Amino acid sequence: MQPVRIAGVGSTAFGVHTERAGRDLFAEAAQTAIADSGVPRADIDHLCYGNFVGPVAEQQGHHGPLMAKAAGVTAPATRYESACASGGVALAGAIDMLRAGTADVVLVGGMERLTNLDTETATKGLAMAADDLYESRAGVTFPGAYALMARAYFEEFGGTREELAAVAVKNHAHALDNENAQFQQAIDVDDVLEAPRVADPLGLYDACPITDGASASVLVSDDYADQHGIDSAVSVTGSGQGTDTLALQGRESLTRTPATERAAADAYDEAGITADSVDLLEVHDCFTIAEVLALEGLGLYEPGTAIAAAADGETTREGELPVNLSGGLKAKGHPVGATGVGQVVELTKLLRGDHVNSDAVSDASVALAHNAGGTVASAVVHVLEVSA
Amino acid sequence: MQPVRIAGVGSTAFGVHTERAGRDLFAEAAQTAIADSGVPRADIDHLCYGNFVGPVAEQQGHHGPLMAKAAGVTAPATRYESACASGGVALAGAIDMLRAGTADVVLVGGMERLTNLDTETATKGLAMAADDLYESRAGVTFPGAYALMARAYFEEFGGTREELAAVAVKNHAHALDNENAQFQQAIDVDDVLEAPRVADPLGLYDACPITDGASASVLVSDDYADQHGIDSAVSVTGSGQGTDTLALQGRESLTRTPATERAAADAYDEAGITADSVDLLEVHDCFTIAEVLALEGLGLYEPGTAIAAAADGETTREGELPVNLSGGLKAKGHPVGATGVGQVVELTKLLRGDHVNSDAVSDASVALAHNAGGTVASAVVHVLEVSA
Repeated sequence: MQPVRIAGVGSTAFGVHTERAGRDLFAEAAQTAIADSGVPRADIDHLCYGNFVGPVAEQQGHHGPLMAKAAGVTAPATRYESACASGGVALAGAIDMLRAGTADVVLVGGMERLTNLDTETATKGLAMAADDLYESRAGVTFPGAYALMARAYFEEFGGTREELAAVAVKNHAHALDNENAQFQQAIDVDDVLEAPRVADPLGLYDACPITDGASASVLVSDDYADQHGIDSAVSVTGSGQGTDTLALQGRESLTRTPATERAAADAYDEAGITADSVDLLEVHDCFTIAEVLALEGLGLYEPGTAIAAAADGETTREGELPVNLSGGLKAKGHPVGATGVGQVVELTKLLRGDHVNSDAVSDASVALAHNAGGTVASAVVHVLEVSA
Repeated sequence: MQPVRIAGVGSTAFGVHTERAGRDLFAEAAQTAIADSGVPRADIDHLCYGNFVGPVAEQQGHHGPLMAKAAGVTAPATRYESACASGGVALAGAIDMLRAGTADVVLVGGMERLTNLDTETATKGLAMAADDLYESRAGVTFPGAYALMARAYFEEFGGTREELAAVAVKNHAHALDNENAQFQQAIDVDDVLEAPRVADPLGLYDACPITDGASASVLVSDDYADQHGIDSAVSVTGSGQGTDTLALQGRESLTRTPATERAAADAYDEAGITADSVDLLEVHDCFTIAEVLALEGLGLYEPGTAIAAAADGETTREGELPVNLSGGLKAKGHPVGATGVGQVVELTKLLRGDHVNSDAVSDASVALAHNAGGTVASAVVHVLEVSA
């Protein structure tokens, strides 16, 4: 497939911005990305935007026009919603527009505002990602759902809470110097094991936090980049999306994520690569177990083997395959609708050399972004490569 | 641009389905469309789906996977949300996928469930289409917003309540024999004028109803249609989208809809037609004044002149340019996320000859679908043509 160039990227700091309106957060991310791109604002042909909880968080739907205005863009604007994969799905939509010739320049972004809500309302808002009839009403919340998946994994393959904890420890270590991360604080395995239990076997430090924030990226077609002398060190060369039943009860296995498998297969195919080519990646670690399942779903580890990856040092900053060098959802934070785009912001900087952790991957040329919704009922995978 | 074929269409009856879950409504529409298309379900590459109020109506986000499952589809699924234009935006997304080569077959659909809500909750849900900070919190609801637009129109151009009423009378007359319509009941101008005033100058019969329902369509690429011998009498030859400021206060004029103008210009351009070529159309008549503004925004009438179109008989079943032969949002009903796709269902049947009103347009070859969100902060226009 025709590659799509990443001309610029930008994010707010991820964290607690209780008093800032969603439009204000998105404006900051969009302005940063547009400035980074060097593309004139008037050349933007479309805004593709992801958000999940807006109707609950700000009694606001119809974010497209609102966020276009915030970004100073008069082009058509579309909101995509696929729960926690909303940002990744917006990115996939932008790529379709560029490949279809509907647009030459697309502003892609996402935003979520959550810390203004009390815990009960935030929990209810996030639970909209699960099946209301068969899960949410029965009391299933996401820590519980992922705990079910973790228990099933331990039963089927073995593995220990210490190994899971190593995922959180690693991601906190990666975020230590990332000024956009919500937590720039080291933790150790004991911290994770001693944290309050949320849903057995998962504790508080197995879960990502509630986060406000926004991310954006300017994507341009090859032709536009050439004609306008746009410097873009990184391209998207593959895009894939997958879907699974929304409710866990409808699935054959709680330890496999076929939506991720499908998305990865399509993305690898488009990019003309295999899993072996991947040098670094950002995966959707909303819970520690989610990172394990992602690495297996992406074909980077055989089923039952990724549980040890962080503990063995393979996926750390110094390892062979660094995972979540940004800090991941766990430590960088998870402003839901922004997360999929935020991963691309971080990977772009890592590949082009202006990320605080770039030195760990100075020889890297292929990166993967994996964004998931609900209990991976939605998954989106993008392949990023250093531009030819 | 490469045309996209409409292989099949289907809708539930629009109306009051208080006890039916959203997934049940969408399943019916999708099954009908798939059966109508003759396309094997397994060939569907993506579901593009529109919904607006789901988070409020069913505490349910993440409709993509849910509705794919309801339709018996395992392909990736994406929810689009652009308030009342959600269905039209989903259709535009599907066309991008087909043109980009990401998909050969796309199931497009939309659903809304509203009558299970009390009036206050439904009103709050629909108000999410306006700007929460600058409109909704100040008490602006949609009848009020469109009443402002109607007053501005009367002040700038003249026109009478009787002329506006003729729009509602016409659309009710068109729906008389449409078994999918919510109201199959004739009204006259006096009924409209004597109905309770909602927001001066608009009364109850100037407004579309609260509606449950779902619509779907199977779109295929030219190549797929040829290779699989798919009979598709109607094609989409042009697609355009436009955006305006969400809040009315940010606009230069209350009587112009630049989002519609932009969407129409792009759709005509892609189809290689002008407004003069249009034989019939479905427009977004959420209020009587909205149909007037749509006809002017689409370039079919000069500003200030469409107010008389229905009263003069030009846009009636017997007129030169029949508008809303389905009954429109006013009489067919407005299940928000389904509306944009529902327009295409009706137009496809009208053009291929199996609609109850097909005899009124037996020589027609070019049709227009116009779907708007909020006070036309979003607009989507599609050109449909009898396949070459």
